[in-house]
Amino acid sequence: MQTIAELGEFGLIEVFTRDLGLDAAVSVGPGDDAAVFLVNGSAVCSTDLLVEGVHFRTDWSGGADVGRKCVAVNVADLEAMGATPVSLVVALGAPASTPLTWVRQFMTGMREEAQTAGVTIVGGDTTAAERITVCVTVVGQTEGRAPVLRSGARPGQVVAMVGRLGWAAAGLAVLKRGFRSPRAVVEAQRTPQVPYRQGRRAAEAGATAMCDVSDGLVGDLTHLANASGVVIDVDTSRLVVAEPLTVVAQATGSDPLSFVLTGGEDHALVACFEPGFVPDDWHVIGRVLPAQDDGRPAVLVDGEQFSGPGGYDHFA
Amino acid sequence: MQTIAELGEFGLIEVFTRDLGLDAAVSVGPGDDAAVFLVNGSAVCSTDLLVEGVHFRTDWSGGADVGRKCVAVNVADLEAMGATPVSLVVALGAPASTPLTWVRQFMTGMREEAQTAGVTIVGGDTTAAERITVCVTVVGQTEGRAPVLRSGARPGQVVAMVGRLGWAAAGLAVLKRGFRSPRAVVEAQRTPQVPYRQGRRAAEAGATAMCDVSDGLVGDLTHLANASGVVIDVDTSRLVVAEPLTVVAQATGSDPLSFVLTGGEDHALVACFEPGFVPDDWHVIGRVLPAQDDGRPAVLVDGEQFSGPGGYDHFA
Repeated sequence: MQTIAELGEFGLIEVFTRDLGLDAAVSVGPGDDAAVFLVNGSAVCSTDLLVEGVHFRTDWSGGADVGRKCVAVNVADLEAMGATPVSLVVALGAPASTPLTWVRQFMTGMREEAQTAGVTIVGGDTTAAERITVCVTVVGQTEGRAPVLRSGARPGQVVAMVGRLGWAAAGLAVLKRGFRSPRAVVEAQRTPQVPYRQGRRAAEAGATAMCDVSDGLVGDLTHLANASGVVIDVDTSRLVVAEPLTVVAQATGSDPLSFVLTGGEDHALVACFEPGFVPDDWHVIGRVLPAQDDGRPAVLVDGEQFSGPGGYDHFA
Repeated sequence: MQTIAELGEFGLIEVFTRDLGLDAAVSVGPGDDAAVFLVNGSAVCSTDLLVEGVHFRTDWSGGADVGRKCVAVNVADLEAMGATPVSLVVALGAPASTPLTWVRQFMTGMREEAQTAGVTIVGGDTTAAERITVCVTVVGQTEGRAPVLRSGARPGQVVAMVGRLGWAAAGLAVLKRGFRSPRAVVEAQRTPQVPYRQGRRAAEAGATAMCDVSDGLVGDLTHLANASGVVIDVDTSRLVVAEPLTVVAQATGSDPLSFVLTGGEDHALVACFEPGFVPDDWHVIGRVLPAQDDGRPAVLVDGEQFSGPGGYDHFA
């Protein structure tokens, strides 16, 4: 089995940069000290660090899954601003013993997901590391739209979402018990299905606040409620509890709704709109209320304070 | 001793984002899904991944040294394009047991170096990792200047440089033997002194090819010679062999010139100019010749093929 040690750093860079298919906006791609590209409007930038054993396991996910996931979670942040992704750079740390096959699959996954997301891979960095470590950074553009922050929710608005919730968490519950099915949730854990282009759509429809659900619906809505100084009330009767989630909940003796309310890593988008301005493909899941009597922002679930676990803390 | 586990992920983010002092070009800083800022001209982007035990050792470097180094090596790539840095995002992976003091010093170092480099820290990511892992990504602007690539060297030009060579390598030789002096080279190993703003200066003076010296002068000039299809002849009588390098060479029984020719991590800038157009502060170290009879680009040292080691390979 050929490893990246035999290939060497410059051979590895060649694997990375082959057939990238640069967009017309990119004037300098990989191979120089930095990439150069055009940005229409303001630049929008987000970075994500993914570490083997924390964000993925090589026995659960193949190289292509990891490559796709790295692009997806990163571009989701730009969608959550209502921005359009333009360019992405990737830094890979890996042990010298990493199979070349894994790296090839990783790059194939990255390229495929980048194409789906509408972003061009323009450069990167490689280094030795004890565990596979990937840092992806995306730069996008506002194209004249105002970025949609977390702080713009106003009482009287509705909260709507697009994408999936709870699938990746259900997949994790399955994988942790050593199973590989239902396949749909296991696939969702390996790579999220980000609702690409829906962030811009929300911005165009007048969304005043938006975020992606990376840590869990209640946790991420809490950040949004705090930033906006409002209360958000989630109506669970409007949440989709998909059939595979019910199957997993039954098999693991858990509540399928808890996957939906607290499961992260699906990268659905949630946003606040004036009633009547919710775009097609989005559906309403709650409403924005004024801050409580004590002035505190909060997230309610069916009108009650939510008592379950909140978001994910990497250091807890 | 307080660790980042006690602080938690959101406490850590607060330490990171306090008093960042955002530039006027930045409209959205840390705390949302992505940062938003203006770019004048084309965007220029580079990423670097630095891993404990590979790029730095916590027993050799303090948190502030590591923070400074991460910014310096990354901005140097933009200098090497003749671009102006605007914004920088940082992703930190660290064990839960990392002392809070270390993280505070790291951020102080990053902030100080960012200020020196003229770049604003606009966002980031934090995650758990077994070893301290830092990924920095800088986005800059061309401001109407054409980016200076590696491929523009032409026979008849002179090769000039600004900054230091061999200092970090001499520092590494000292540290590896368990010594802490000469202090100047040890400091250089901990944090490079990047010749900030000189990249733009070179671009304005008409530099047609440029790179920073991250892997070693001969190694990096080889990349430039290959990209340009030329031969570069380095005149060692024009290279500065600083006194601390001579001291280290004597103590370790090595040739001080080998530090200068092959030592990396100082991030000097080398560029090709028409004779007579070399900016102040830069000095000529060689000349550009046509490709050899066999058509091969190469780097010569005093007219001879160089037989020493080339650049650094992370996976070798």
